[in-house]
Amino acid sequence: MTTKHAFDKALALSHSDIRAGHFTGTTSPDYWNMVGPYGGTTAALMLQCVLRHPDLLGAPIAITVNFAAAVEAGSFDLQATAVRTNRSTQHWTVQMTQNGVDGAPRVNTTATIVTAVRRDTWSQNDVPRPAAPPPAEVPPMRIGPNGVAWVGQYEMRPIHGAIPSVWDGTGEHSETRLWMRDAVPRALDFASLTAMSDMFYPRVWLRRATVVPAGTVSITTYFHADDAALAEAGSGYLMGRASALQFRNGFFDQTAQLWSEAGALLATSNQIVYFKE
Amino acid sequence: MTTKHAFDKALALSHSDIRAGHFTGTTSPDYWNMVGPYGGTTAALMLQCVLRHPDLLGAPIAITVNFAAAVEAGSFDLQATAVRTNRSTQHWTVQMTQNGVDGAPRVNTTATIVTAVRRDTWSQNDVPRPAAPPPAEVPPMRIGPNGVAWVGQYEMRPIHGAIPSVWDGTGEHSETRLWMRDAVPRALDFASLTAMSDMFYPRVWLRRATVVPAGTVSITTYFHADDAALAEAGSGYLMGRASALQFRNGFFDQTAQLWSEAGALLATSNQIVYFKE
Repeated sequence: MTTKHAFDKALALSHSDIRAGHFTGTTSPDYWNMVGPYGGTTAALMLQCVLRHPDLLGAPIAITVNFAAAVEAGSFDLQATAVRTNRSTQHWTVQMTQNGVDGAPRVNTTATIVTAVRRDTWSQNDVPRPAAPPPAEVPPMRIGPNGVAWVGQYEMRPIHGAIPSVWDGTGEHSETRLWMRDAVPRALDFASLTAMSDMFYPRVWLRRATVVPAGTVSITTYFHADDAALAEAGSGYLMGRASALQFRNGFFDQTAQLWSEAGALLATSNQIVYFKE
Repeated sequence: MTTKHAFDKALALSHSDIRAGHFTGTTSPDYWNMVGPYGGTTAALMLQCVLRHPDLLGAPIAITVNFAAAVEAGSFDLQATAVRTNRSTQHWTVQMTQNGVDGAPRVNTTATIVTAVRRDTWSQNDVPRPAAPPPAEVPPMRIGPNGVAWVGQYEMRPIHGAIPSVWDGTGEHSETRLWMRDAVPRALDFASLTAMSDMFYPRVWLRRATVVPAGTVSITTYFHADDAALAEAGSGYLMGRASALQFRNGFFDQTAQLWSEAGALLATSNQIVYFKE
């Protein structure tokens, strides 16, 4: 008997009319955050329904996910629509809906996704992976008994900028670098790369050494990896790096990069985050 | 008699049913690029129809624009839909369509936009404006007789990383810094800030000192400016900075920041760009 990985269970989708791009699924308790599913899983689901669509052209290049409202525990609907298909690129819109108390569907998440057939070209990475001790030499983050479920699904080994252990308002920077991978090994794919690109805790907590309410409003991830690069990364560690640019009147933007252990820059990501106080 | 600014003419929209979010407009020859309108103007139009919508809540926080297909010279339709309105944030989807040869509407551009009511909070800019000589001491870029129309609508004073004058394949970096503003003075607003966030020529040209076909596929801009910050910037110079992260198999991502001359970080932007060879 093969046990299905928790992430694959979270991504499981049924389809009533696959060609019409209509899918249904259920939120995963394994990736629960404080008051809803981990946003990275939601982003991965927005991508997953496009990857499952029979009309898909090529592989993901870019995804923007907008968290419009809380996703409630239970079932949801996904609608993926290829709004334009060209010779080598394809543009998708995706919406997640759940039924409101009146039974009518309400949008809680929107996304746009670009897929493309990639061709070999001149290539150059100008953002090399930061030097760091190998993962085995970096202690894993301990997860307390009160930790949220999704954090337990990942192994995180913070090299720099771990979550502050003392919240005394003395923060001086917003940069985190860490080794990370699925706690239960799983070969990297576009869905898990999407989820991992949202794995950094809110930069405002680090910058201020203060916990304030915060949540991602919109995230954009660009994929540099193709299938060969994903296969090379396999179930190994990724290095993640994140930092914020500016905090201003309720919103800040944070930028992130994800490399394979061997140093391939697999994805870059940006998000705008709401915060209070 | 007051003459309307070319940018305001480019943004002019009619509405048949403003509450339904349906607008029509016409492409501007003043902002024409090589084979279509300047993408920054198209992005500004996607935002403009939301700003015109009577149901608008707050001010823009984030916009993602996907260039799905070429925009043809002539009239276009815009459909702005508020898919979710919360207490202090609002999520929009926008599509631009033009009629195909068969008379049926075809989507050429999609966008998602987040608007919000901002509140005073702790604020911190961790990306200060790079030091530079004042604009008056930096010579403006000369625009040749074969230049495309939109470039003539802006005054650009490159400090670092100007368009190469010799295309000999000797490029070593992808960073441009410049002073920029509307050639005909116009007070900065969210639409013009959106357009200006797309103003940097493809980084691959600089990195390789080689001209290859290239075009933006998707751009995301985050707004840090509120109305007060825009008013402070007025019709003055902005400093723009752009650089690429990685070029790989047909796509590269470039990041940009825009500051007021006084040093306020007004917007940050990221885009993924298609390139050949």
